[in-house]
Amino acid sequence: MPIISQRGLEMPSSPIRKLAPLADAAKREDVKVYHLNIGQPDLPTPQKALDELKKIDRKTLEYSPSEGFLSLRQKLTGYYRSFGIEVTSDEIIVTTGGSEAILLCFLACMNPGDEMLAVEPGYANYISFAITAGIKVKAITSTIENGFALPPIEDFEAAITPRTRAILLCNPSNPTGYVYSPEELQKIKELVQKYDLFLFSDEVYREFVYTDVPYVSAMSLGIPDNVILIDSVSKRYSECGIRIGMIVTHNRLVRDTVMKYCQARLSPPLLGQIVAEASIEGTQEYSEACYAEYKARRDFFIDGLNRIPGVYTPMPQGAFYTVVSLPVADAEDFCRWCLSDFRLNGETLMMAPAAGFYRNPDLGRNQVRMAYVLCIEDLAKALKLLKAALKAYNKRQV
Amino acid sequence: MPIISQRGLEMPSSPIRKLAPLADAAKREDVKVYHLNIGQPDLPTPQKALDELKKIDRKTLEYSPSEGFLSLRQKLTGYYRSFGIEVTSDEIIVTTGGSEAILLCFLACMNPGDEMLAVEPGYANYISFAITAGIKVKAITSTIENGFALPPIEDFEAAITPRTRAILLCNPSNPTGYVYSPEELQKIKELVQKYDLFLFSDEVYREFVYTDVPYVSAMSLGIPDNVILIDSVSKRYSECGIRIGMIVTHNRLVRDTVMKYCQARLSPPLLGQIVAEASIEGTQEYSEACYAEYKARRDFFIDGLNRIPGVYTPMPQGAFYTVVSLPVADAEDFCRWCLSDFRLNGETLMMAPAAGFYRNPDLGRNQVRMAYVLCIEDLAKALKLLKAALKAYNKRQV
Repeated sequence: MPIISQRGLEMPSSPIRKLAPLADAAKREDVKVYHLNIGQPDLPTPQKALDELKKIDRKTLEYSPSEGFLSLRQKLTGYYRSFGIEVTSDEIIVTTGGSEAILLCFLACMNPGDEMLAVEPGYANYISFAITAGIKVKAITSTIENGFALPPIEDFEAAITPRTRAILLCNPSNPTGYVYSPEELQKIKELVQKYDLFLFSDEVYREFVYTDVPYVSAMSLGIPDNVILIDSVSKRYSECGIRIGMIVTHNRLVRDTVMKYCQARLSPPLLGQIVAEASIEGTQEYSEACYAEYKARRDFFIDGLNRIPGVYTPMPQGAFYTVVSLPVADAEDFCRWCLSDFRLNGETLMMAPAAGFYRNPDLGRNQVRMAYVLCIEDLAKALKLLKAALKAYNKRQV
Repeated sequence: MPIISQRGLEMPSSPIRKLAPLADAAKREDVKVYHLNIGQPDLPTPQKALDELKKIDRKTLEYSPSEGFLSLRQKLTGYYRSFGIEVTSDEIIVTTGGSEAILLCFLACMNPGDEMLAVEPGYANYISFAITAGIKVKAITSTIENGFALPPIEDFEAAITPRTRAILLCNPSNPTGYVYSPEELQKIKELVQKYDLFLFSDEVYREFVYTDVPYVSAMSLGIPDNVILIDSVSKRYSECGIRIGMIVTHNRLVRDTVMKYCQARLSPPLLGQIVAEASIEGTQEYSEACYAEYKARRDFFIDGLNRIPGVYTPMPQGAFYTVVSLPVADAEDFCRWCLSDFRLNGETLMMAPAAGFYRNPDLGRNQVRMAYVLCIEDLAKALKLLKAALKAYNKRQV
């Protein structure tokens, strides 16, 4: 039998999905599982967008342009303008989700063996796409004690080598919910300029910023040739399934190069583009309602977490995730145990062990990532389950 | 300004789409362009599948499973059974088009620097995905004189080195329309076994085989751990835009590895899966009508091409492409000229220069690839345009 590739062996399993078989087994026993592990919003997709599917009168579901429909890209320019980001439709390339946007940026901007700096804990799939592209990720550690603020800029600079080509930021951050301040971004800008690096800025949670500090997009930093924006409609409109993301940059050479990859994969999803386009305009009220809902959940959930003995999480300023330290030595073991052993009135909960979001294998061992994508009633139940589970788990350990 | 990657520079532009700017310019002058360059079928998508879009009553367009919906994979097992291919739903992974299926197979089975043998002329995007994955493609040349039959197996064997990990076949072939015979596939099988190689078999044109010789899928060769089937619903149901393909293999280790890549990109398109699933059953009549239409076009178009002085193409046995030699020295120059200079009653035609389908830069210079995805009436006009264009072009050259 021919053997698989070394890089395939090195690909990590998803820390978000790796415990899924245990959850499936629990469900087969009719146990209700509260999913705090995955960023699948429960909020509805805008009705306006769903209605658009019923209006499709195409006879043939043909390829769309490799760069995405012009009409969609034009509407996106208006959307970006509302966030103070001035781009033309030519500067937007539609991708198959934010996932493809990440991979294509890596491929177009870095060679195998090149290095990229990224904050840890960070979105785990960045590592998967980095392995796919053969690039090395150097993790700069942020800590729960500092509320996952930007690590000292000296830590970034110390990690730079002649192979360093880029810095990757997720702002607001998945998994920590941290929103980088204008001052922090200014420091990143100076470093990017000093070493002439690319700055990949993943801003898919842009709408979900709950602080009063003004949100700064990397596109507004005044380094147009260095910044590449990674974006997606998935979370914004509860449209994770349609797989529509985008790469936005003023750097024409990067766009031209990305387009060669886009042409090879022919086109982004046609139907998803139709839904995404219908979601952009006339959905102000929808967006405000989503924002208010997530903010209320955050306030409720974070407070509730910090009331459980031994549990601590900083207040996330954006997105809908938080990294939580638990009074256990091995959070993955605890997560597994919750799914396989712990039941309270036939219910349990699923969390993502945070170790998978760190590069350093010693970090985050007592942490989990939780997504508050359940209604407050369910979050209240999840909190109750967590409290009881911790008590039972730690008693069992003695 | 930071520079783009070397591999990005090496990515070829699509030979199918590279002349698009010239076509766009012609259209802006109100010139009607007959597109023979791209495999975008003009036939309708099954109405049953289009209707399914109107029935979607989901409130949230959420992620689907990374491996694709079970209900879709179950229906696919029935589809494959009708072609004599016995697989379980677990052995099918749904991908974002055949395009992603190709890339994920390369990533999962080969390391950077590994080698793969493929017939030239071949589907140009194989090269793009090979560059993406960092693997080397060694082209084994088939010739128009032999009707693009499988090159001598000795040519394959002579190209094998210690780094050779796979053979890639497209059957029926894009761009030649050739269908490999049972005897040819037997020779490939023996070579695959002798060197324990992977056999990637791209069979997306399976329904469109116009010969009486029985079609043999690589899945039926009796080398279950070596064969990886690359598939797509794009051409089968005129659903290129929905981006639904699949990887099918009995090799569990390959599937497990592919799944890690699939988890990183989260999920294939939700809406496309709904359309694809609705297309599989109850569309026998539709499929028969498509088949009859393509067959009639082939018979008409190939005959017409060979009646033009100096033009030659072998009879393709499958798919809806053919590679045509023209009485010109530089087919790309001729294709460009047709778009930029040639007009007959305000009309012209667009073809894909075949050189982009060869690895050897000296080959195919006087050839083009044509897709017969237009109705017979339009094909007749295209033939008339080609005849007149060749006459005018060659007169101009004197």
